[in-house]
Amino acid sequence: MSCVTSAATQARAAGGPRAIVAGATGFTGALAAHLLWRHPDFELVAVTGRSELCRPLQEVYPRYRVPLAIEQLEPDRLEGIDAAVVAYPHAAAAPTVAMLRERGIRVVDLSADFRLRSLATYEHWYGAHPRPELLGEAVYGLTELHRAQIADAGIVANPGCYPTASLLALAPLARAGLIADVVIDAKQGISGAGRVFDESTHLSMAGENIVPYKVAAHRHTPEIEEQLALLAPAQGKDPADLRVQFQAHLVPLDQGEMASCYVTTTRPVQAEELREMYADAYAAEPFVEVVADPPGVLEVRETNYCRVFAAADEHTGKVIAFGAIDNLWKGTSSQALQNLNLMFGYPETRGLL
Amino acid sequence: MSCVTSAATQARAAGGPRAIVAGATGFTGALAAHLLWRHPDFELVAVTGRSELCRPLQEVYPRYRVPLAIEQLEPDRLEGIDAAVVAYPHAAAAPTVAMLRERGIRVVDLSADFRLRSLATYEHWYGAHPRPELLGEAVYGLTELHRAQIADAGIVANPGCYPTASLLALAPLARAGLIADVVIDAKQGISGAGRVFDESTHLSMAGENIVPYKVAAHRHTPEIEEQLALLAPAQGKDPADLRVQFQAHLVPLDQGEMASCYVTTTRPVQAEELREMYADAYAAEPFVEVVADPPGVLEVRETNYCRVFAAADEHTGKVIAFGAIDNLWKGTSSQALQNLNLMFGYPETRGLL
Amino acid sequence: MSCVTSAATQARAAGGPRAIVAGATGFTGALAAHLLWRHPDFELVAVTGRSELCRPLQEVYPRYRVPLAIEQLEPDRLEGIDAAVVAYPHAAAAPTVAMLRERGIRVVDLSADFRLRSLATYEHWYGAHPRPELLGEAVYGLTELHRAQIADAGIVANPGCYPTASLLALAPLARAGLIADVVIDAKQGISGAGRVFDESTHLSMAGENIVPYKVAAHRHTPEIEEQLALLAPAQGKDPADLRVQFQAHLVPLDQGEMASCYVTTTRPVQAEELREMYADAYAAEPFVEVVADPPGVLEVRETNYCRVFAAADEHTGKVIAFGAIDNLWKGTSSQALQNLNLMFGYPETRGLL
Amino acid sequence: MSCVTSAATQARAAGGPRAIVAGATGFTGALAAHLLWRHPDFELVAVTGRSELCRPLQEVYPRYRVPLAIEQLEPDRLEGIDAAVVAYPHAAAAPTVAMLRERGIRVVDLSADFRLRSLATYEHWYGAHPRPELLGEAVYGLTELHRAQIADAGIVANPGCYPTASLLALAPLARAGLIADVVIDAKQGISGAGRVFDESTHLSMAGENIVPYKVAAHRHTPEIEEQLALLAPAQGKDPADLRVQFQAHLVPLDQGEMASCYVTTTRPVQAEELREMYADAYAAEPFVEVVADPPGVLEVRETNYCRVFAAADEHTGKVIAFGAIDNLWKGTSSQALQNLNLMFGYPETRGLL
Repeated sequence: MSCVTSAATQARAAGGPRAIVAGATGFTGALAAHLLWRHPDFELVAVTGRSELCRPLQEVYPRYRVPLAIEQLEPDRLEGIDAAVVAYPHAAAAPTVAMLRERGIRVVDLSADFRLRSLATYEHWYGAHPRPELLGEAVYGLTELHRAQIADAGIVANPGCYPTASLLALAPLARAGLIADVVIDAKQGISGAGRVFDESTHLSMAGENIVPYKVAAHRHTPEIEEQLALLAPAQGKDPADLRVQFQAHLVPLDQGEMASCYVTTTRPVQAEELREMYADAYAAEPFVEVVADPPGVLEVRETNYCRVFAAADEHTGKVIAFGAIDNLWKGTSSQALQNLNLMFGYPETRGLL
Repeated sequence: MSCVTSAATQARAAGGPRAIVAGATGFTGALAAHLLWRHPDFELVAVTGRSELCRPLQEVYPRYRVPLAIEQLEPDRLEGIDAAVVAYPHAAAAPTVAMLRERGIRVVDLSADFRLRSLATYEHWYGAHPRPELLGEAVYGLTELHRAQIADAGIVANPGCYPTASLLALAPLARAGLIADVVIDAKQGISGAGRVFDESTHLSMAGENIVPYKVAAHRHTPEIEEQLALLAPAQGKDPADLRVQFQAHLVPLDQGEMASCYVTTTRPVQAEELREMYADAYAAEPFVEVVADPPGVLEVRETNYCRVFAAADEHTGKVIAFGAIDNLWKGTSSQALQNLNLMFGYPETRGLL
Repeated sequence: MSCVTSAATQARAAGGPRAIVAGATGFTGALAAHLLWRHPDFELVAVTGRSELCRPLQEVYPRYRVPLAIEQLEPDRLEGIDAAVVAYPHAAAAPTVAMLRERGIRVVDLSADFRLRSLATYEHWYGAHPRPELLGEAVYGLTELHRAQIADAGIVANPGCYPTASLLALAPLARAGLIADVVIDAKQGISGAGRVFDESTHLSMAGENIVPYKVAAHRHTPEIEEQLALLAPAQGKDPADLRVQFQAHLVPLDQGEMASCYVTTTRPVQAEELREMYADAYAAEPFVEVVADPPGVLEVRETNYCRVFAAADEHTGKVIAFGAIDNLWKGTSSQALQNLNLMFGYPETRGLL
Repeated sequence: MSCVTSAATQARAAGGPRAIVAGATGFTGALAAHLLWRHPDFELVAVTGRSELCRPLQEVYPRYRVPLAIEQLEPDRLEGIDAAVVAYPHAAAAPTVAMLRERGIRVVDLSADFRLRSLATYEHWYGAHPRPELLGEAVYGLTELHRAQIADAGIVANPGCYPTASLLALAPLARAGLIADVVIDAKQGISGAGRVFDESTHLSMAGENIVPYKVAAHRHTPEIEEQLALLAPAQGKDPADLRVQFQAHLVPLDQGEMASCYVTTTRPVQAEELREMYADAYAAEPFVEVVADPPGVLEVRETNYCRVFAAADEHTGKVIAFGAIDNLWKGTSSQALQNLNLMFGYPETRGLL
């Protein structure tokens, strides 16, 4: 970390926990940096990356007015750092998380490396795990499901955006043991593809298009299955019992994600029971809004809110549940902040309203 | 029909079947008029509507260069007309279709009024039928499924766009008796909402949004169920046996529609069997393209093509099938032309390539 | 004002200036309400409108989480109100502004009613003025140009979005007496058309389109001309001396506006002189960013920033200056807050960073 | 040219002029191939490129159903070829054009290499010219301006899309000697950036944005200046006399381009004179539509039409003229076909309506 930082920048220093974002040049790392920079308590002291070195982050992401220059991550200059958000690709994240943990830094990891409890499941979908010994230390960072453990965690494995929307839509049904089978059809804006420059993101090809991707092969499936199994009344049940059919699509907007979940229930569910179940489940949640009409993703854009709506279909007997989020916010980076708030003793909504 | 038509316009007269479009001010009627106008054989002689009277259609729809002026439909001035496309709302269409039939005019009706064979099913979803006596005369106009009957029909009930995409994606599985259960998650551009001016179509609200609509209540369901039952090996089976879970969403583009179908099969299906099944089903179809990768709707924009892709998911055992169309073209108006070609003895692709 | 307001809502009351938004159902009024609601000092006590009565504003505008119910504006229930934002159409605003002033309420008016100093100019473009006697009391609310008078004003006439972007782009040249002739070509997102439901805002017609509107007839012209004349070194000069060529276009995005200004200068201007002129002009401005590359409107989306860039064209001798804003924010509602901050003694950036 | 071409493909052979597209992997080359493939007379026999070798063009561009495989251009296998469209970058095109000419092939070149008559002007903007000896043989391919020479030309230098829209909007004024000064503000969809994958085309950055580019440095300027000088009554005048202020912007759509031209006239022009001037200028043109209201680019999308609208501004005395085209069609590839039709004796509209 050796780029010169201006006096104006340093003036912002505050006295709260000192944080860095590792991998700030991607969409989610940059947003995490933005949210930390404007947070009233955390002090963002460095943003690191492998490209765009020494450029102020706000040059690369003009909307995120973060004046810090992008630096290389140097392990021997991390003294005094309390918190880190790691926004690396899968498999690349684990070694850096391990290095940060060795220095006592509490980490929110945005990758998939620590999301699964089962090493076997990880290896089935991703190959060998770079740091399996740390799996036990990690807590799954869907705040609404694991609040207590997150508060004390050294590693928080931030969920994927698809699992976030899907699990918040399904959790009340899962807890009630009502999910016999589920199809999740998810739609996401192009920001979900990240800072990737190819046919999938070129406006002339991605605009005015709807494209399914990773058919019958989406890595978010095991994460959803594992968490649904944990929620089920008979915990400890083999997650393999419920195979989730998950399918993602890219649609032509920037930020926004809708998980449409079609549940075959274990017994008939009436509209009134469903309404109460969802109202009760989220009554105390500051960031989950159970709404009376099907939500649009624009309603939660650039917020940490998830809007949830469920309906019983009398014609088919199925339950349909929708979860709407901003994939970059609640789906990733603002949920990371929500978790950091918990980890460092701040109100969960701090800097996020 | 009394607006003055210019000599230049009349000069186009050709000698082929003389056609009108009733209800040409809506999106689908206007497109049908455009396609008839540029068709090498049909002679479009009038476009009618209840608004925009005496304005050239090309003023209302500049992209569709149809110079004919919009007139009121006058039953006593229909002599010499051979064909009509009726683009009226549901229930409003039937009386006009009946009036046209009385004059011997062959009709492609874009409404739902004649799509269902079962009067009981119609009444369950739509209320009393205005002309039930004509139900027997009507043929369901999904060209690929009912080609032979369409050729001789007096009334062709053009399918809805959602059933078109869904049924083409599912037909090979239905014919093989493989569908035990199916969830259809459909996404459509804003043109699907029609020439309607409200929150659902305002760019500031519909752009950058994804919105499910008509949750657990979509009227396209019975049409899909009835046709899947007809395709099943044991024809005559009660369509009620298969309840289709159908859900529509609006996504921020103009034209395009994707039906993502998740099928629980009656027996395990392997990838190779699936590939052959779809290849065989559509080998001779000029407008159905079985593709090797998940299709995007942009690939079929402003064409009469439907792209179909199916995959077996080893993890869940389900089959996923996609149907991608342009909702205004193959989903509605160009399929109407495809049917008119058949009805009047022209090659099916005439004027559509 | 008689809709019941929940205890939760009332709990937000704070002790700062008590404000209302009159006309909160339109895009700009709703955003002003949102910004006041989340402001740390102002207390938003009522939102009024003529439609959507008794609905919480957050139902009509889900993104703006303002729980207050929309009420009718009742003049005899305004006791204790300190500030008002009036978001009415032109001509409808003036009588309400007058009524509020009689009660001692300080007003930011978003309409054009009080923007022009010259009654004759107003009458030329808009017809008879409803309250000409108040013209003298009003201050033009482009904060960066009239900061001192705004602080003490009873009526602040908030500028139009086009004049805001144009004047901030041109002010340094105007002050230096360099503008001999100017063409302003402005492009704006569809939110600029407001909560209007017709062809101009339907996604199928406005999306994928670029449309010039109000050709040779745009009412923002006199406002720009009057302010440029005020800025010129020889103040008091007849504004008619400089006729501004202004042209607006709608382009397919939601929020964002670019004013591209082509200036024939009174004498040759070199790049270096230009750079210094702009740097000096805005060095102390918290919300004007002079940038080194042509700005995109996305860089200022949902902020109160204006980005300005100017270049000398050696080939033609002209100066090109760009002003990029969010038309709903700096172009209207957040600038209203910036002015309210000044009027009530708060730091100008309060609640806007 | 050695990729195997299927029998089905060869079956299309027709007997008309045999054509190739060199550089078919870019947006404009691919569209030219599509238009030639579906043309009733030309026979497209090969598409060449430097990447995507041996892939059917319709795999790379699914919307353009051209089954020919992409091949390398091999000079010794060009026997029997009559026509070529060259879609190479500037400077790269000239040597290939020369090679094709040596073999007697008539060429429409989409690059800038042969657009300027003045070698000095070319060298000022582009550097050394690779084949200056061919400049005299080339005809500027704005069909409406140089129809007669195009019919006999060996090389047609297809205009840039910006000059096409600008010149068609300005030609009537130029011919009347009315242009004393002109500012052209152009807006274009993202397809104008081509098959380029970077920040300027990523939907998350280009969507919801408006960005000026190449400020005070646009290479289309000299082309416009030279053609305006040619049109002026006193031909032979030094083109340097009129310096055109041209500025381009990217706006968030796929295809479409608007040139807004602000003309200071040499004498006052009234509305009626202007109307007649434009009506007369384009009365016989099949592809130029003088319209009564400001046109939107959606009205000409995927057509060879240019819509033109002009108005006199009484307030400023200036004339405003708009030219709306599809940048890929009339702006480039369909105009190439229009020219090929002329060159080979077909009606100009052949295959383009």
